[in-house]
Amino acid sequence: MSAAPLKQTVATKQGFDTKSYLRSTSEVVERSLDRWIPTVKTKPRRIHDAMRYSLFAGGKRIRPALCLAAAEACGGEWTPALPAACAVECIHTYSLIHDDLPAMDNDDFRRGKPTNHKVFGEGIAVLAGDALLTQSFELIAKVKPTSRYGVNKQVLELARASGSLQLIAGQVVDMLSEGKAIPIKELQYIHERKTSALFCCSVRLGGMSVNCTPTQLKALTEFGYNVGLAYQVIDDILDVTQTSEQLGKTAGKDQHAQKATYPSILGLNQSRRISKQLTEKAFLALKPFRKKAAALEALAGFLLNRDC
Amino acid sequence: MSAAPLKQTVATKQGFDTKSYLRSTSEVVERSLDRWIPTVKTKPRRIHDAMRYSLFAGGKRIRPALCLAAAEACGGEWTPALPAACAVECIHTYSLIHDDLPAMDNDDFRRGKPTNHKVFGEGIAVLAGDALLTQSFELIAKVKPTSRYGVNKQVLELARASGSLQLIAGQVVDMLSEGKAIPIKELQYIHERKTSALFCCSVRLGGMSVNCTPTQLKALTEFGYNVGLAYQVIDDILDVTQTSEQLGKTAGKDQHAQKATYPSILGLNQSRRISKQLTEKAFLALKPFRKKAAALEALAGFLLNRDC
Repeated sequence: MSAAPLKQTVATKQGFDTKSYLRSTSEVVERSLDRWIPTVKTKPRRIHDAMRYSLFAGGKRIRPALCLAAAEACGGEWTPALPAACAVECIHTYSLIHDDLPAMDNDDFRRGKPTNHKVFGEGIAVLAGDALLTQSFELIAKVKPTSRYGVNKQVLELARASGSLQLIAGQVVDMLSEGKAIPIKELQYIHERKTSALFCCSVRLGGMSVNCTPTQLKALTEFGYNVGLAYQVIDDILDVTQTSEQLGKTAGKDQHAQKATYPSILGLNQSRRISKQLTEKAFLALKPFRKKAAALEALAGFLLNRDC
Repeated sequence: MSAAPLKQTVATKQGFDTKSYLRSTSEVVERSLDRWIPTVKTKPRRIHDAMRYSLFAGGKRIRPALCLAAAEACGGEWTPALPAACAVECIHTYSLIHDDLPAMDNDDFRRGKPTNHKVFGEGIAVLAGDALLTQSFELIAKVKPTSRYGVNKQVLELARASGSLQLIAGQVVDMLSEGKAIPIKELQYIHERKTSALFCCSVRLGGMSVNCTPTQLKALTEFGYNVGLAYQVIDDILDVTQTSEQLGKTAGKDQHAQKATYPSILGLNQSRRISKQLTEKAFLALKPFRKKAAALEALAGFLLNRDC
């Protein structure tokens, strides 16, 4: 680990500059990813080129920011949480590459750029996703075990959140539900797995890497679940209300793919109410951390009010 | 872990019954996989159905057998090596599912049955591969750390062997070399990564899980590398000499896909000589284990003389 000092923001609730915080966490995470992911000059160049194309395509780095902010909330530094922060970003990026494939969501644009398979071809896109998924476990193996959480617990945490009962389950049921009228409970099942699971995992890993207490871990779980679900409900809303240019990806695609969404089942106003209620629950979960949770709280508020 | 006694064969060089040994290791590994992989009744059923379809499609379980035999060679039991044995089989199965996809090798049959995407569709096949890859790390997180090898070392071992510098590198260069005349050195690069890397990893993890000495680990590495490369050269030979019925997969597909192989570059006789030389090298590497390596030696001999 580099000994260079990290620009860690001292978290204070008043006047918290979330954008600046996100810039700092993104910078640190991107520097780490750049150091830990093989360069484009490493053979086979094409796969490393494809991995880095999507990994450095201008993602908002929300999950790593939540991971670092969770470490901070538990009284820890960012540094021990960095491998986990990079690991969750690799998982997120792999899931986007595979979701965008023609056999799945068949998307041409992501973050305003052509999707991975559009640039590198489907075969390489499948393999680039596989490689990022594998890389995430190489990264998580770098974490220092803490007295409460051995490497095995952190590997298990990442594997379960990304596995066939969570992240992949969400994608499967989402795909199989296309064109079908599903009840809100089933949509919630999808959203919890497609989005909440990795949000939850991000903050839990942040806490674990600084040896958080069981009480803190429980609070982070509650926070991560609610912020994650709110995030996905807002994603559904933005898909209806924003343009493709604003989103950097194809807008209106849920409706086009006949996908059930919160707005399509409950309407826009009720969906907005739910996203606010979920964010309120997330705020409540932060009580035990007091002032140290300023960054987590600011991030949750920022995500609620985002427009892309 | 179940307390049921395992049918562990006492390894003796004379009259070693390799088929019976493989039956025993397969049985134990399949029982463990059945216990550790979510059932087909677990929601979402379709993904667990797809994962299990390929995982229980009659594979020879070579890699797990090598893993358990390596534990035995180091004086250990099979039981501590079982999570690793199952993990390498999950990696192998995921790599086959993704390799068979239309965007890659586009294969319709595998082990005499329709390939995963033929049965479940491409989207689910991609996700079933992803889920097995993720599952392998959940399994490896189950290993008990030994005094020399913590869980982090075993996770790293699996991640590196399966990552963009090894297993995936082999598949990438293989795919990009289709239809091109490549030198034997480049073909060796592909084979080392597509096959040797996971063979090596299988025996190394077997050794690590019973706390092998550094000398033993080095010997296992040498053995695994050579057996793995021999295995792939023989695969190239069988693709030319056997029928699809004998192989349980499409024969002659290397030639059809204009893939460079050992026989296409060096001819059948020279390729056979090389596979024997590699197996001899593997035998030599086993010297430090003396009689305890009887199973590893028998497996290497069996793989050299296989006809499918």
